Amino acid sequence: MFSPIKSTKVYEQVMEQIKKMIVDGSLKTGDKLPSERELVERFQVSRTSIREALRALQIIGLVECKQGEGNYINHSFKNSLFEHLSMIFMIQESNPVEIIEVRRVIEVGTAAMAAKRITNEELESLEILVGVYGNSRDEEENVKIDKKLHYEIAQASGNYLISNILNAISSLIDSFIKDARKKILVEERNAEILAKQHWEIYEALKNHNPKKASEAMKKHLEFTNEYMLR
Amino acid sequence: MFSPIKSTKVYEQVMEQIKKMIVDGSLKTGDKLPSERELVERFQVSRTSIREALRALQIIGLVECKQGEGNYINHSFKNSLFEHLSMIFMIQESNPVEIIEVRRVIEVGTAAMAAKRITNEELESLEILVGVYGNSRDEEENVKIDKKLHYEIAQASGNYLISNILNAISSLIDSFIKDARKKILVEERNAEILAKQHWEIYEALKNHNPKKASEAMKKHLEFTNEYMLR
Repeated sequence: MFSPIKSTKVYEQVMEQIKKMIVDGSLKTGDKLPSERELVERFQVSRTSIREALRALQIIGLVECKQGEGNYINHSFKNSLFEHLSMIFMIQESNPVEIIEVRRVIEVGTAAMAAKRITNEELESLEILVGVYGNSRDEEENVKIDKKLHYEIAQASGNYLISNILNAISSLIDSFIKDARKKILVEERNAEILAKQHWEIYEALKNHNPKKASEAMKKHLEFTNEYMLR
Repeated sequence: MFSPIKSTKVYEQVMEQIKKMIVDGSLKTGDKLPSERELVERFQVSRTSIREALRALQIIGLVECKQGEGNYINHSFKNSLFEHLSMIFMIQESNPVEIIEVRRVIEVGTAAMAAKRITNEELESLEILVGVYGNSRDEEENVKIDKKLHYEIAQASGNYLISNILNAISSLIDSFIKDARKKILVEERNAEILAKQHWEIYEALKNHNPKKASEAMKKHLEFTNEYMLR
């Protein structure tokens, strides 16, 4: 069997070299890349190829171009990459059920991690959110607090990767199921139920009880997911 | 405060339009894109801008260019995107502990899902793998079987998204901790312990017992992770 020959373009080779420098640690987040002219000299390729490579690295979110300053290795996660990821999910026709399942799996485990590691400051901030939730008559406001609550619990897990993955999934869910959270709150008694569930999660975190935190989170997500998928 | 004005390039606008067509469902995976000439007419922009947009879409893995055939909406997940993702993880200096934690969280939850949904065919295939594991004197062979085992359990969860995320994480782990799995097997009695743990997971799946499946997976991963992080 013959295998198809993959043509590698010059700009791709430049990209690969820059990626290698990241892998071996010679380029780190926040570092400034050499100027276009220097890169031309170093790689012995045309300026066009260098520009193509830099643009490609910008597109995937590895490099950031600061106007008038030059190119830097990006240090923010909240870039285009997760947006691209959600596009890929969409063309895969992932259904909302799958996405919500992934979220449940991750958040239930994350709650246990948070119970082990949450700091006193984090607990204080969470207590305020849990207390404020449901007080407002503005449903949109409550939805915001709800999201912030889950975000802070993910942060309290101490795992940067997890909070980023959860953020990406959360925006994915939003793009699929618009206004789903508001729907839950339309039923008056649900606001009360949700507030109680939040307190249960908070209590488990405060007692640093991973098992109870997981269980409380599971109960909470199963309740809300049911509404989201209606 | 003034906020910086973000210049939007023409090719980015073209990209956005094509993305919108994916979001609203008018472009689906496997679909052929209009020719460059048609796109020029439709968007009323230069051929260069169209080419830049198409290249950008190729880079993020949304579009695949088939030589002599044209551009298609990609239908394979196993494209460059996850590679980009692992680069981002690297510049973030995510440590192996974080990555392994994410894997544990997801796989423990996934085992429970698999216990609910696993089919008889999947159980049969898994039983063969579990039986074969540890028989070989070739450690590399056993490592391969081990990976296949975890992969099949993720597949049995019935959630496509989860098995893809786990695959990405698994290759990330490999790139960080080379030969870690082999290290575990160097200690002779570990092969036996691992084989036993696999049987426990299999039994729980066979009995469609989500709780036991989770517990068995947790025990297994805590054991192996300890070696990986040595």
